[in-house]
Amino acid sequence: MILLYDHPLSGNCYKIRLLFALLGIPYESEQIAVTGDRDHDRGEAFRAKTAIGKIPSLRLDDGRYLSESGAILWYFAEGTPFLPEDRYERAQVVQWMSFEQNNHEPNLAAARQQLAIDPELHPGEEQIEGWRSAGTRALDVMERHLSKHEFFVGDICSIADIALYPHTQMADQGPFDLGPLLATQAWLERLRALPGFVAMGS
Amino acid sequence: MILLYDHPLSGNCYKIRLLFALLGIPYESEQIAVTGDRDHDRGEAFRAKTAIGKIPSLRLDDGRYLSESGAILWYFAEGTPFLPEDRYERAQVVQWMSFEQNNHEPNLAAARQQLAIDPELHPGEEQIEGWRSAGTRALDVMERHLSKHEFFVGDICSIADIALYPHTQMADQGPFDLGPLLATQAWLERLRALPGFVAMGS
Repeated sequence: MILLYDHPLSGNCYKIRLLFALLGIPYESEQIAVTGDRDHDRGEAFRAKTAIGKIPSLRLDDGRYLSESGAILWYFAEGTPFLPEDRYERAQVVQWMSFEQNNHEPNLAAARQQLAIDPELHPGEEQIEGWRSAGTRALDVMERHLSKHEFFVGDICSIADIALYPHTQMADQGPFDLGPLLATQAWLERLRALPGFVAMGS
Repeated sequence: MILLYDHPLSGNCYKIRLLFALLGIPYESEQIAVTGDRDHDRGEAFRAKTAIGKIPSLRLDDGRYLSESGAILWYFAEGTPFLPEDRYERAQVVQWMSFEQNNHEPNLAAARQQLAIDPELHPGEEQIEGWRSAGTRALDVMERHLSKHEFFVGDICSIADIALYPHTQMADQGPFDLGPLLATQAWLERLRALPGFVAMGS
């Protein structure tokens, strides 16, 4: 049985839970801490097994490990409609997943972590403003794309959409306002309408 | 002809130049600013063409665009030894490229940008310490992996190695010391020994 190293508050872990729900893939999960002393909580044994030591990580049914939400999404989407066959479209999936990991998640997730999950971390005003301005630029890039496209790659939902969904739908837990982003709101609704969709907290 | 939107100081652009050199792929390039007012320099027309508005971006010979270094590497490595065929190994390539974009590049490149390229930005001590501690953790993850493996995925150089090479070999332009990282130093040498290798400034 697949074992997912998971946490209910982690948007990166939710990407995997969402794809597994959409594909009907059964799995077990083990909860790993996301607050407090991460290095201590996760421990040397976890780091040794998973190469990178982050969650989500996953043990395949053959005992091999994978880390990083994008890698786990890629592995399980292969051969399904969530990962296109076309070479250019596959590169576009990598494009949006890279954007999510480099421009989107670092700002939206860090702001949420420090403002909504661990407020005793007391981030400085300058740090909050950095996340707000860079995160707003990332949301604007998405809004511009979604004003002309139903999904990020091609005409159907791919793992690029699944990667961008969790932290976008929680953006208001940080200093972001989705109110004016009408194309993004419509896209969030399209994802919620997919057969098998599960919400973050379910 | 392929057109690469490039800058000689950009480690993310160098990834593409390095893969093109290793594969013998001819291309033209157009220089896009990496310092100063990025949004102004890059301009609305560039953002409209490239979806994300970052460099590297690339225009394929059929006129379509790709952004994000990982996406461009993926597109051109497909069908070459730099991208394995095996499903698990491909997911491992995504794993290390995600780690590079989320944990490695944001710290090593930001520290280099603000300490070595744009020193008038005057980053605060707290910001430098944030890059130093998170970047050091990323370099430690690499060192631990490379102490047991010659390359990041499988037994040969893949685009995971090419993605991690540029900012690692420039780490000392930020607050990082590669001196104790012997396995990482040996890996840098293995990459420099590849047929067709080009250095960052060449």
